[in-house]
Amino acid sequence: MDPYDYQARMTRRPMVKVAELQKEQRLKHVIFADQIDRGLIEHLCGVADMIRTISKTKKGSLYLTDLLPHKRAMMYFTQPSTRTFLSFMAACQILGITCNEVRDRNTSSEVKGESPFDSIRMFSSYFDIIIMRSNEKTFAEGCAYLMNDLESSGQRHVPIVNGGSGSEEHPTQALLDIYTMTRTFQFSDPKDSLKWSRFDDLRKTYPGLTKGLDNKVYAFCGDIGRGRTVRSLCKLLTQYDDPTLIFIAPEIPSLRLSTEMRDSLTAAGAKVIEVSSFEDIVNGKPVIEMIDCLYMTRIQKEHNNPVDAELLQTMDLSRYCLTLELVNRMKQYAPILHPFPRDSNFGEIPPEIDTNPRVMYFRQARNGMWIRAALIAYLFDVDSRILNHFRDYYLNPIIV
Amino acid sequence: MDPYDYQARMTRRPMVKVAELQKEQRLKHVIFADQIDRGLIEHLCGVADMIRTISKTKKGSLYLTDLLPHKRAMMYFTQPSTRTFLSFMAACQILGITCNEVRDRNTSSEVKGESPFDSIRMFSSYFDIIIMRSNEKTFAEGCAYLMNDLESSGQRHVPIVNGGSGSEEHPTQALLDIYTMTRTFQFSDPKDSLKWSRFDDLRKTYPGLTKGLDNKVYAFCGDIGRGRTVRSLCKLLTQYDDPTLIFIAPEIPSLRLSTEMRDSLTAAGAKVIEVSSFEDIVNGKPVIEMIDCLYMTRIQKEHNNPVDAELLQTMDLSRYCLTLELVNRMKQYAPILHPFPRDSNFGEIPPEIDTNPRVMYFRQARNGMWIRAALIAYLFDVDSRILNHFRDYYLNPIIV
Amino acid sequence: MDPYDYQARMTRRPMVKVAELQKEQRLKHVIFADQIDRGLIEHLCGVADMIRTISKTKKGSLYLTDLLPHKRAMMYFTQPSTRTFLSFMAACQILGITCNEVRDRNTSSEVKGESPFDSIRMFSSYFDIIIMRSNEKTFAEGCAYLMNDLESSGQRHVPIVNGGSGSEEHPTQALLDIYTMTRTFQFSDPKDSLKWSRFDDLRKTYPGLTKGLDNKVYAFCGDIGRGRTVRSLCKLLTQYDDPTLIFIAPEIPSLRLSTEMRDSLTAAGAKVIEVSSFEDIVNGKPVIEMIDCLYMTRIQKEHNNPVDAELLQTMDLSRYCLTLELVNRMKQYAPILHPFPRDSNFGEIPPEIDTNPRVMYFRQARNGMWIRAALIAYLFDVDSRILNHFRDYYLNPIIV
Repeated sequence: MDPYDYQARMTRRPMVKVAELQKEQRLKHVIFADQIDRGLIEHLCGVADMIRTISKTKKGSLYLTDLLPHKRAMMYFTQPSTRTFLSFMAACQILGITCNEVRDRNTSSEVKGESPFDSIRMFSSYFDIIIMRSNEKTFAEGCAYLMNDLESSGQRHVPIVNGGSGSEEHPTQALLDIYTMTRTFQFSDPKDSLKWSRFDDLRKTYPGLTKGLDNKVYAFCGDIGRGRTVRSLCKLLTQYDDPTLIFIAPEIPSLRLSTEMRDSLTAAGAKVIEVSSFEDIVNGKPVIEMIDCLYMTRIQKEHNNPVDAELLQTMDLSRYCLTLELVNRMKQYAPILHPFPRDSNFGEIPPEIDTNPRVMYFRQARNGMWIRAALIAYLFDVDSRILNHFRDYYLNPIIV
Repeated sequence: MDPYDYQARMTRRPMVKVAELQKEQRLKHVIFADQIDRGLIEHLCGVADMIRTISKTKKGSLYLTDLLPHKRAMMYFTQPSTRTFLSFMAACQILGITCNEVRDRNTSSEVKGESPFDSIRMFSSYFDIIIMRSNEKTFAEGCAYLMNDLESSGQRHVPIVNGGSGSEEHPTQALLDIYTMTRTFQFSDPKDSLKWSRFDDLRKTYPGLTKGLDNKVYAFCGDIGRGRTVRSLCKLLTQYDDPTLIFIAPEIPSLRLSTEMRDSLTAAGAKVIEVSSFEDIVNGKPVIEMIDCLYMTRIQKEHNNPVDAELLQTMDLSRYCLTLELVNRMKQYAPILHPFPRDSNFGEIPPEIDTNPRVMYFRQARNGMWIRAALIAYLFDVDSRILNHFRDYYLNPIIV
Repeated sequence: MDPYDYQARMTRRPMVKVAELQKEQRLKHVIFADQIDRGLIEHLCGVADMIRTISKTKKGSLYLTDLLPHKRAMMYFTQPSTRTFLSFMAACQILGITCNEVRDRNTSSEVKGESPFDSIRMFSSYFDIIIMRSNEKTFAEGCAYLMNDLESSGQRHVPIVNGGSGSEEHPTQALLDIYTMTRTFQFSDPKDSLKWSRFDDLRKTYPGLTKGLDNKVYAFCGDIGRGRTVRSLCKLLTQYDDPTLIFIAPEIPSLRLSTEMRDSLTAAGAKVIEVSSFEDIVNGKPVIEMIDCLYMTRIQKEHNNPVDAELLQTMDLSRYCLTLELVNRMKQYAPILHPFPRDSNFGEIPPEIDTNPRVMYFRQARNGMWIRAALIAYLFDVDSRILNHFRDYYLNPIIV
């Protein structure tokens, strides 16, 4: 049935796969969060910051669009998406890449019986990178193996980027979340100067506060078990020193942390705590008051099975909705993230919070564009050009 | 429910709103026809003529695409559209702007419960202008307020352009209609020379004929009450001296001029006349013979309520269809416009008229592209560059 | 009903139409395979090869995108398509053309009663070329006449390219098939050198082998009667010397060669043979062993009428599926083509064949992109620029 034997390859241990998806320490395809280590995160965040700065002028924008105008991207998104889709489009366009899309299987050849792998192989004929989202959790991975096989036999092959694979992984969302946290935990501010900084100010109230993502307490609220963004993000957070991960979820098995994920996070060095409410006491304090970062999620009711649906009916789910009152009890600097879309009917984040300075969820969208542009630049090996350009034109010369 | 209090702002008088949608006499957003005064119309028509001329060569086209290649537009059209959509796309592309689109809510995040304002705010993260069409008549207006609020709080904000809002407004269609009339009422022609002009010729038959849009008789036929294009266009026509506006519509209240619109047009100085047929006598002549310009429309049966539908059944609607015979009775110079699409089943404009020299409806489409390019150039403040370029390279030098 | 009288023009003989679709020996529109003669095929294959070579570097790619950046293409595909659609998009983008698309009639003005010819005329207002696919077999032809009429009356008109018209024609697919065969029958190989070539090697086994498409045996398997690609390709093959065309199809009238097509191929000089299986004996050998080229097709079950469906049920259709065993009996050099998509359920080409060196179906896709780029360059009259550029920068100078 499967001449390419993908099934057997998919069941191998992550580290074996990771090696196969890179070439001399450089990623060829982006499929799992496990592929991304701290060094790469920091590199990409740096490149994203540079792209952001360079693109502020028309001249800078044109420098960037002149990097990859000879490349074409296929956006193959067969699962609904606006944010990730547009963010990748914008990221490509920043670098001059022309985008094409296939989103609706009804206008495509799959109605004629074409196998999805044939579609991917066709895309690799016309395009230079395939960015994809699929309901099937292993499809992107299989596509990466297909490309590797083509490479082995000396044929045309292109990088695969996973823009969301079923309930499994969403590695670039995790990257943008980490990028947003990285920027927040710099505690810099327009008013910063050599003499004074927001960080010094905050240290008066929070003496133990440090910059960066190490040694922080992260809370995740809502649909933990079924959310691919939480899964991918937690994996990245274990790259940092001593993370504490608190999961706040309804007591329904499918919505809570899976045993497998709990074990893997613990094994990776994280301290894992599971509670049912923002008010549960951890280290002598209600959760809401002791966390350094809050990551909200939407209850993905489209994934409810009948049992879950019935259980959810009987519960008070307003406990998984933020209120202005709760927000005001949070640490002054603690950012609130949400992968968006938020559910305006469920109300996990009511709009009256939108103007609170802790809110980062709108910035996440724009951060996503920059970090994805950095990732694509890296995949096409023009990231070093951006570094050099930035050094030559944007940094003050160091006088020796 | 609405923390942004848009409802209250929407009910204010037009002139209060107009002020809020501009910045030092320059429009920030394009939402209503009321925002557009005669000076702006004439400016935009001039810029459109220049863009049209400049784009005739490859070199000129490249000059134009070099104006805004660092900008990206979101085309957010959740109501069916081909003409307006493509026209805006083409207008953006003429100026080098990269376009992205969201048209089908089924492939977007609104299926996950996202509020439309969250979508708009996300678009403003990735894009530099949002061009939108919506069924809801106040949605574009609300988006403009959202952007203004973001601006007030020092956050990223972009211009909103209304490409059709429910049954309410379609200001850029009105602009292209006016632009088409402006060009027609110049009475210029390829055969024009310093010695002889088509205008002189016409004056032999029509001694009172003047150039321009002042003091003309405009007739509108068909679906007056439910047509946003007629509504927006009439508002612009009141910017000209002494317009006579004749409305030819079936005697069904929802299809006829609303009291509110009649009052506002009269208050703005227009002479308003309502009739039921092209043959009705006005100033001693059948309407068809005395008008300077005829604007046909499609009966929008998709907006029929059951009462209207039944009434329409009983009526002879062929009176609202043009025939070659009627056309031949019109003034020789009187243009025939139609916002298109025409309804090939209803037949308000049968194709045998298409080759008549009075026909302007095909030219409207192309005019729409140019005037929209002019409008977008204006919104991004590069209109003066176009003026300067045109003066430097296309006008004959004036020797002093 | 039809003021443009297209019906009458469509029933004329092909050669009368061909003359009308060109201007001084150069095609204006691409509608039928009959328009394309051997000289044009060879010219386009040459240009395609050059585009392919030039685009290998970033500098070369930028040379190509600088040819037509002032042009915009409308992709009007109202019939499902991925491959042809993306291939044309890529072809346009290679030449710097900006693409827009209309694919879903539900988001277009046809829901408001617009006639398709009005849509086409609108497209010709905004765009510089219309590439279209339609269920209706004469629609593209009608559009070409519409454009010619506009030209005659001094109005804006653009080239029409047929990307698939009902069951009738698919001329650009035929071009890419021919281009693939042309490349295959050069028998060149990376290992070729001045001293030794793959062709010499093959001649040891096949002493009568010649380069090029003349005097070859072509087999077509599967859905012959309903396949527009086979129809268009066979017409092109009759441009070559003494083609033998073998058709392998189930014994169902609608799937077999039509009388009309058999007669026209025979009249054009082809030897036509019809069989029911790869094992049928022709010239003393089973078909599978004596053919120079095999063109597989998908059984287009979406076109089944009830009678066909019932007949197909009773037949053993596995005879129209290739197997590895059959492939191994083919001549060593004989290419296997398929217009794709293949039907993964029916299995006319099982994936275990994919790595066989005879397989050309994946290359066809990429070849399609190059030959379409060549065709579009030709339609915009920049093909000679490509020839000159190639001569100046890629060919070794001839020292006199």
